Order: sequence, then C-alpha cells, then structure tokens
Amino acid sequence: MDGGSPGKDDPGHAAVVDLLGALAYGELSAFDRIAEDARTAPTLAGRADLASMAAAEIGHFRLLEEHLAGLGVLAEDAMRPFAAAIDAYHQVTAPHDWLESLVKVYLGDGLAADFYREVAGWVPEPTSSLVRQVLADTGHSAFAEREVAAAIEGSRQVRDRLALWGRRLLGEAISQAQHVVAERDGLAEFFVRSSGDLSGIAALFKKLQTQHNRRMGTLGLN
Amino acid sequence: MDGGSPGKDDPGHAAVVDLLGALAYGELSAFDRIAEDARTAPTLAGRADLASMAAAEIGHFRLLEEHLAGLGVLAEDAMRPFAAAIDAYHQVTAPHDWLESLVKVYLGDGLAADFYREVAGWVPEPTSSLVRQVLADTGHSAFAEREVAAAIEGSRQVRDRLALWGRRLLGEAISQAQHVVAERDGLAEFFVRSSGDLSGIAALFKKLQTQHNRRMGTLGLN
Repeated sequence: MDGGSPGKDDPGHAAVVDLLGALAYGELSAFDRIAEDARTAPTLAGRADLASMAAAEIGHFRLLEEHLAGLGVLAEDAMRPFAAAIDAYHQVTAPHDWLESLVKVYLGDGLAADFYREVAGWVPEPTSSLVRQVLADTGHSAFAEREVAAAIEGSRQVRDRLALWGRRLLGEAISQAQHVVAERDGLAEFFVRSSGDLSGIAALFKKLQTQHNRRMGTLGLN
Repeated sequence: MDGGSPGKDDPGHAAVVDLLGALAYGELSAFDRIAEDARTAPTLAGRADLASMAAAEIGHFRLLEEHLAGLGVLAEDAMRPFAAAIDAYHQVTAPHDWLESLVKVYLGDGLAADFYREVAGWVPEPTSSLVRQVLADTGHSAFAEREVAAAIEGSRQVRDRLALWGRRLLGEAISQAQHVVAERDGLAEFFVRSSGDLSGIAALFKKLQTQHNRRMGTLGLN
C-alpha cells in the first residue's frame, strides 16, 4: 500500500518507524508542555495564542499517526521506546517561569527542526515530505522573539540567566539523544550509514550546535 | 459589516457579546482542563485521543474569536467578565481521578450544549448558526461512555461514587450560572425577554435538569 517505503524486514523500515515514533512523541509532549505553559501566560490573549500553538502540534501528531498506520504501525507502539528519554529531557528542563518557557519552546523546536530536516534527506518519499511538513513553524517564533526581546532589553541579569538556560537546553538534549542511540543499535547504524561515517555524525552535531548558537543570537542571548 | 447583528447600542448586542464571551472562555478552559486530563490517561492512545479533543476546543474558540472580531469586540474583552465564575466552577469540581474527569467532560459538555442550543434560538443569524456549529461534538461522547461503562460494570461502589459526582456537577454549574446572571443585569433581562418570562427561565432549568438526568442514565449512573 505504500510502494515507496521499505518493507518491514528491511532495517531501513525499522529506522524510519523509530524516527517517526520519536517525532510523534515529541509532538505529543510539546502539546502537553505548551498547554501547561499557556496556563501561566500573563494575559488571556497570550493564553489563547499558546493554546492554539499546542493545538497545531496535535495536528502534526495526527499526520504522523496516519502515516505510521499506512506503514502498518500503531503510533503508540512507535512512540513507546522514546517516551522515557523525551520525558526525562522535559523533567530536567522544567521552566521556572514564563520567559524560560518561551526560550525553551523556541530553542527546542528549532533544534528538533534542524535535526529532522537533516534526517528528511535520508529517508524515502513520502516519509521525507511528511517530515518536512510537520516541521512547519507553528507560530512560536515571532511571538517568542518579541516577548524575550522586551524582557531582556532592560535587564542584563535576565539576559545572562536566559543565556545560561539556552546553553543548558542544548546540553540536556544531546545527552538524552545519546542515551536513545546507545540503546537502539538499528538507529545508530542508520545514522552512521546515512551520514557517511562517524565523522559524518560529528559534523551533524557541530552543525546543530552552530545553528543553536545562531538562534541564541537572534533572541539576543549571545 | 455584519448586517444581521444588532448595533452596538442595542441591548441585544451586549447580550450576544456576553453569550459569545462566556462560550469562548468555556472553550478555552475546556482546552486547559482536557489537556491536563490527557496527562493522566492510562495509555498513550488515550492521551493522544484526549489531546485531540482539547485541540478541537481551540478550533471552536478560534471561530468565536473571529466572529467577535466581526462584531468589533476582542475575545479577551468579551471573555473577561466570565473567567472568575468558570474558573470557580472548575476549581470546586476538580476531578480526583481519570473516571471523574471523563464523567465531568461528558456531563459538562452536554449541559453546556443543551443550554447554548436553547440560546441559539434567541439570537440573530449568523450568530445563531455559529453557536450551533461550535457545539458540535468533539468526540468525547463515545469514548467516555465506553470507558465509564467498563469501569462501573464490576463495581457498585464506583457507580455510586460517580453518580454522586454527576449530581454535584449540575448543582455547581447552576450555582455559578446564578452568580453570573445576578451580576449582569443586561444578561438577566435578555433571558427573561427571550424565554418569555420568569416561568420561561424556570422551564429552561427544568429542561436542562431532565436532559442531565437522561445523560446520567446513558452512562449507567441512575
């Protein structure tokens, strides 16, 4: 039914399911996290904006769920191996206030999008197009840039605190990603094969780091 | 720009804005509440289902927001007078577990839908059609009926506890609605005028109560 995708016995199939499962759980937990942040919004308009962003994540989740069903896989089965690592990331990076929430959503979404944009080039169609589609900006960016810029304008202390926060988020994300790959041989092989070799993976990490720093700069946190 | 609607100086305009504002805040707080309940779902599939229902509430909220904008009113201004009463309702009826959450969503949505279906007959087009549209079932019903039926099948104790819970929800909803109407003369006048007289309001309450009891029966809680 899905001629362009590898068969179930192909190791590539397992890696594609893993990547979609991790992305799907990422969307579901983004929904959770943004819905919770919405409650701390300082205005009713901000609360409605954040709630809409959370709803957009669920729209993406549903697309991934349908696509996985087409591959003969239940979303919950595909997501399960990644729930612990993604939950752990959110637990150790629980924001302490509204600004930390915004910075986390902005930098975290950017990092995930950069990573999946690379991966989209390594998987067959129609999965590749789907991955690009669910990475579409849900409207966080402009909103977060505006709010953070206003907050750090008058306070070097707030800026320093948020800069430290931004660097920590990258460290925690990489740490959890390493746990996942260490536990899933098939996924590790997929990365090595797709990126060329081990130095290809190092280059990918370097690239993600550079783009993260660029985004920190856009927020005024460099 | 909205020829069918009363002008701003018409007392009917204020009542329509009030009703839409209360409905909009109801959707926004339903989003919050269902998003929170999703986190306590016993399975990943149940969690994804509830998250989708929450997202549907935001879809409805956006329709109301657009319609209010067409009447020249910001949603946050229309919602503000009703936030305290709706928040108070949710605070005194905070569910203690997953089953209480499901019963609350099922009965609460049903009650709100019955109320607004009556009101839709009292307001001009296109508001009337919009109100009917946002009352469309977001998919809670079948899901809640199935889960609650399974839970009470083997336990009279669970059934009795949930039956008590269902009766309490109606009492608290009526109590908060009375607070709101007591504080907003224009809204009270609108109800009296629209329903005919004070006995018309009594008849409406009676009807809502009967339909609530019928839904309790559908859940097996009579």
